[in-house]
Amino acid sequence: MAGTPLLNELRAALGPDAVLTDPDLLRMHERDEADLCAAGTPLVVVRPRSTEEVVAVVRAAGRHGVPVVPQGARTGLAGAANAVDGAVVLSTVAMDAVVEIDPVSRIAVVQPGVVNATLAAAVAKRGLWYPPDPGSWESSTIGGNVATNAGGMCCVKYGVTTGYVLGLEVVLASGEVLRTGRRTAKGVAGYDLTSLFVGSEGTLGVITEVTVALRPAPAESLTMVAVFPSTATAGEAVAQIAARGLSPSLLELLDRTHLRAIEAYRPMGLRTDAEALLLAAADTGSRAAEDLAELAGVCEAAGADEVYAATDAVEAAALLQARRLAHPAMERFAADAYPDGNGGLVIDDVAVPRAALAALLDGVARIAAECAVPIGVVGHAGDGNMHPNIVVDRADPASLERGRRAFDEIMRLGLDLGGTCTGEHGVGLLKRDWLAREVGPVGMRVHRAVKAALDPTGLLNPGKVL
Amino acid sequence: MAGTPLLNELRAALGPDAVLTDPDLLRMHERDEADLCAAGTPLVVVRPRSTEEVVAVVRAAGRHGVPVVPQGARTGLAGAANAVDGAVVLSTVAMDAVVEIDPVSRIAVVQPGVVNATLAAAVAKRGLWYPPDPGSWESSTIGGNVATNAGGMCCVKYGVTTGYVLGLEVVLASGEVLRTGRRTAKGVAGYDLTSLFVGSEGTLGVITEVTVALRPAPAESLTMVAVFPSTATAGEAVAQIAARGLSPSLLELLDRTHLRAIEAYRPMGLRTDAEALLLAAADTGSRAAEDLAELAGVCEAAGADEVYAATDAVEAAALLQARRLAHPAMERFAADAYPDGNGGLVIDDVAVPRAALAALLDGVARIAAECAVPIGVVGHAGDGNMHPNIVVDRADPASLERGRRAFDEIMRLGLDLGGTCTGEHGVGLLKRDWLAREVGPVGMRVHRAVKAALDPTGLLNPGKVL
Repeated sequence: MAGTPLLNELRAALGPDAVLTDPDLLRMHERDEADLCAAGTPLVVVRPRSTEEVVAVVRAAGRHGVPVVPQGARTGLAGAANAVDGAVVLSTVAMDAVVEIDPVSRIAVVQPGVVNATLAAAVAKRGLWYPPDPGSWESSTIGGNVATNAGGMCCVKYGVTTGYVLGLEVVLASGEVLRTGRRTAKGVAGYDLTSLFVGSEGTLGVITEVTVALRPAPAESLTMVAVFPSTATAGEAVAQIAARGLSPSLLELLDRTHLRAIEAYRPMGLRTDAEALLLAAADTGSRAAEDLAELAGVCEAAGADEVYAATDAVEAAALLQARRLAHPAMERFAADAYPDGNGGLVIDDVAVPRAALAALLDGVARIAAECAVPIGVVGHAGDGNMHPNIVVDRADPASLERGRRAFDEIMRLGLDLGGTCTGEHGVGLLKRDWLAREVGPVGMRVHRAVKAALDPTGLLNPGKVL
Repeated sequence: MAGTPLLNELRAALGPDAVLTDPDLLRMHERDEADLCAAGTPLVVVRPRSTEEVVAVVRAAGRHGVPVVPQGARTGLAGAANAVDGAVVLSTVAMDAVVEIDPVSRIAVVQPGVVNATLAAAVAKRGLWYPPDPGSWESSTIGGNVATNAGGMCCVKYGVTTGYVLGLEVVLASGEVLRTGRRTAKGVAGYDLTSLFVGSEGTLGVITEVTVALRPAPAESLTMVAVFPSTATAGEAVAQIAARGLSPSLLELLDRTHLRAIEAYRPMGLRTDAEALLLAAADTGSRAAEDLAELAGVCEAAGADEVYAATDAVEAAALLQARRLAHPAMERFAADAYPDGNGGLVIDDVAVPRAALAALLDGVARIAAECAVPIGVVGHAGDGNMHPNIVVDRADPASLERGRRAFDEIMRLGLDLGGTCTGEHGVGLLKRDWLAREVGPVGMRVHRAVKAALDPTGLLNPGKVL
């Protein structure tokens, strides 16, 4: 067997328990949660426990010319963690130590396999907060969050992952260990290599340690819901909220398709007759009630049928939970939409400048009609970052083709509106063509030059992003 | 004359008025405000008015193998904008248009020669705010601010320049025009090339357009002063402020040397008997008085002799103005400290994790004693980013040597405390050796690989950073 010398080297370096070749385990590690993406069968899955072991894996794979595909919890939605045939899948899940929490410098140092929720809980005990909260936060790892520059619901006020990454330890394709960045609040020593690795989807190096900035825990938030007669009026409310200089700590949109899907999945009395619902929160402490009232006023002026505030923390948590259920509920809804559970969901992700949100929502409705596919829309309205979710019949090639066309049309629309083909899910395998359209030929040449500078033989995560 | 064919090409492309060869003008463009740095005499200074003209300059210089040194307002403090002999100095000051302000998407698009204060005023008229406020903000340009990733006083709460740069247009060494980033609040399409150019000090490309994120204008702030019997107790107060989860909108430290220098420069009744003064502000609207009282309480508990709040906006502005005068006042103080105005100031810039601030301040005092040079300390205490300013006698080689030794010892101390050799002033020529120490051999190899990928012939700002 061709891979045997490599396997022997890996076993010698990591011990047999960290080198997995069981076919079921290999299959389990073939792909992340993205649809429409190819995935191969790896030669082996390794679970190093230290930077030194990651170095050993990368060097051994390099010697044998076998590609290395880094993986976290495989919750990604662009295929960036998908295996290629014969590759070494390098899973960082066993590197799961919270190394340090420093409440005065407001930083934490963690290994890449630490689950987002675990870090959140660990720093909360010290009165601190790690804001980035992707939908997958209960299972996704910080390493994966950094590699994909994960977003989430709190970004509208507190920004995405890259804003919290101060420094990294990275194993390069050469096997060298690079330390980037710093432990300080500010620093301008050299090029910003830290940000270059954030969001690079495992194509430039394997992240082995992350130094993150923390914030003080926010005040408890007050939450409200506004019910709209159309998605476009909800989009208009979002624009007005921005224009008025308001800073909600949450500003999410759910359309009727999602409201119905959630209500069917877990009944909680949502207004399923509404065309769109905005969920907003204010975490400004003694000023929160006032800020929430101002948000409510803007929503009413923009055409909301009804606005109501959560009466207590329990109701607020239930509303947040409804939003968090949008993804699994819509998956279920899609599966049930066609016979034999053959329905499937193609999850898109597009971001436009806030001023163009209403036009994006209108456009998606038009695309759904033109392509004759159901599309539900949910997402981070306050950031102009929406997830149009396309329902297809997996057993019907024509339906799949219409879904694929709608998927592309939505990205075209996003770019036409001055936006980006991916607000937070990344490029991976799913959007390589769209990346090329978005950044153009000069942009692609620079991307390739940077990749070649750091990984000249294309060892790391080949075929992703570029 | 060797340069004549190039000059003719430049005149043909830009018109004669934008191609300066007057010896006085050349001399004026030789250097920025950094001390201790070499500077050469350029062949020519060009002032292109458009991206196309920048392309023409870079292509012509490239054909003739003549280096290009980009310059903004030359207010930098690391020599990054210093000319090299025979170079084309490319000044972006004539590209000074505010292209667009969009209050809903909260972005502005500006040319690189727009002065920071001009942008601030333009967006303020629309109820918006561009936070980065380097000391030079009344004269420095956005292009220079981006190229150096400028900091300032508001960073303690609102972050540095890179946090506000969404996208760039950059002319590469090849003459190609690269567009990076986006106009959206979020986006993860491809590598974060935007952040790579931010802070790269003109070594990777010439910035020709900047898309910045804006914030709503903050509430008016309340300001207080705490007077300390030692710099270390002031540093301890800063650590306690962070540990308590407080978020002042300003947290600056001035030591006795600076207080006396400011009072001599422009008398305003500062407590010149104090060893250190902390200036703090809260901009939390209806909660500001409460937050200011909490900051005051922490300062008192840490050992402040006296704490007083500014009674009105006029007094608060005067305190801020005192802080803003620290740099020119200290320059004057240094000049007057030795006969014939031969005194000079060597401005250092170091950042440590907040928890190490008191140790940094203690260490700087020890270094001043050991090296037998006066050192005043001022800076952004809340970020752990201090400017130890070293007074030397320019006419005395021994004094210069002691100053240089203190400068190096301070950076060594900063690194030993887990910090960085530059918090906000950059590397330029001044700190190339220290960058190499801070990032190590692997880090330097990666820096060089990135530089070579983008500028293989070393056309742009040679000798800077690396």
